[in-house]
Amino acid sequence: MLKEYLSQKKELIEKELQKNLRKYLHPKTLSEVMYYAVMNGGKRLRPILMYMMCDLFQRSYDNIKDVATALEFIHCYSLVHDDLPAMDNDIYRRGKLTVHTKYDEATAILVGDILLTEAFNIIATSDYINDKNKVNVMSKLSEYAGFFGMAGGQFVDIKSEHIKVSYDTLKYIHENKTGKLITAAIELPLIILNVNQIRKEKLIKYSRLIGTAFQIKDDILDIEGTFEKIGKKPSDEKLEKTTYPSLFGLKKSKEILNEHISEAKKILKDFENNNLLMELTEYIGKREA
Amino acid sequence: MLKEYLSQKKELIEKELQKNLRKYLHPKTLSEVMYYAVMNGGKRLRPILMYMMCDLFQRSYDNIKDVATALEFIHCYSLVHDDLPAMDNDIYRRGKLTVHTKYDEATAILVGDILLTEAFNIIATSDYINDKNKVNVMSKLSEYAGFFGMAGGQFVDIKSEHIKVSYDTLKYIHENKTGKLITAAIELPLIILNVNQIRKEKLIKYSRLIGTAFQIKDDILDIEGTFEKIGKKPSDEKLEKTTYPSLFGLKKSKEILNEHISEAKKILKDFENNNLLMELTEYIGKREA
Repeated sequence: MLKEYLSQKKELIEKELQKNLRKYLHPKTLSEVMYYAVMNGGKRLRPILMYMMCDLFQRSYDNIKDVATALEFIHCYSLVHDDLPAMDNDIYRRGKLTVHTKYDEATAILVGDILLTEAFNIIATSDYINDKNKVNVMSKLSEYAGFFGMAGGQFVDIKSEHIKVSYDTLKYIHENKTGKLITAAIELPLIILNVNQIRKEKLIKYSRLIGTAFQIKDDILDIEGTFEKIGKKPSDEKLEKTTYPSLFGLKKSKEILNEHISEAKKILKDFENNNLLMELTEYIGKREA
Repeated sequence: MLKEYLSQKKELIEKELQKNLRKYLHPKTLSEVMYYAVMNGGKRLRPILMYMMCDLFQRSYDNIKDVATALEFIHCYSLVHDDLPAMDNDIYRRGKLTVHTKYDEATAILVGDILLTEAFNIIATSDYINDKNKVNVMSKLSEYAGFFGMAGGQFVDIKSEHIKVSYDTLKYIHENKTGKLITAAIELPLIILNVNQIRKEKLIKYSRLIGTAFQIKDDILDIEGTFEKIGKKPSDEKLEKTTYPSLFGLKKSKEILNEHISEAKKILKDFENNNLLMELTEYIGKREA
């Protein structure tokens, strides 16, 4: 059931991504790199969460499809920049050459900059959202992607390489570097769908739990995963990054992961039509890539 | 008269920049880098043009001060990224170490990303602009900064190093890499101030003329300027970039520059209170740094 849903939605989301990418025609070489950076074989977890919010409240995807494209553009830009030699220095991502490896560093920097900029353009020029919601969405999205969100978290992460950091710092990194965009995936649709404050807060709490769970699972996969499964070389060890397993050991990390998953599922019990979200929540704890 | 105006406005603009920068407290190291990247001794030409639009139509700076900060953040991000080793590889800018030289490359990439992201946050959360104008401003700003603007122009510029390009390509580079943000500096205030279409179009045309003039003058300074005057090493020659002087020679380039300046001044004649803009237009042709 979930598997089918995920593959259906992924197809829908990638059609939207491609539709948007077709606007960027000239310079053609740049247009090709943008396509390569976005159509990267990703799981599309963030847009899928947004579509799931529409399904949870039985509302049309039209409400949020442009914001889903924008959020995925921002996620893709962050991957392109994170892979750069000065950052994580990754040659492969999901089994494909990273953008700076296939093209060059200048191109990767610029394509990241462009994806970030165009994300805001897609929301600002959307035909499906009113001005008030556009402003609220862009306000939250920029907060979650910038200094107080993803990029801030990435900065602390980079600065924490080769040193052992405290649990507080590790939490800060996770909550910001990956957590904030997962929260965005849940919160932005709730803004547009005008969901009441109590339900919104519950689901934002849910997003934080699965965000952390997702990251702990990433840390675990980085140790247990193989190139074949996760499509890249395990890199945390190479960079001597502090992770849940390095702080708590593998066994305890798995326990913490499971606690987060059950907390998240507890929140979902207050919502009807929660079947798919329940399944997805379990999948986050169990995924192998 | 102009000189005093410029230094007064620069002070005002830098106070606004600093006020905004004070919001970014933790992580402190990141906050310091942002300050370094923004308080960089720049001329603040783009925000000054925005303030001049307010003066031209005798309206309060409050209308546009947040957008001025946002535009300058975007300009600063572009400088930080352009200076990177993979791009123009500059060690100095305005006589100070570039961000990646003073700190490191990862920091420079992230601080650029953050300045770009926060620019949209500043507009989206501004207390001085209504939602309709926020959306229109962010729509134009992202267009002018992204694929169809500054970053697209920078991409073509980078790809044109060490090869002789056509006049059309050179124009494309200039119109996008530097021109579009200068047009933004003129057009965004006109959106917010609700200036009528005819006047808006005239001033947008004016912005294109001074944008090109500014770039031709940059090319000329890159040949005639010294480190003491322009605060950086002349770099176009090093990278064998096609420039107005390399295509047309120095003498003809100066003629084209002067034509642009007089065309621009002609447009201004249709506006009252144009004294300062007239002086600024002349200054763009004559500046020595």
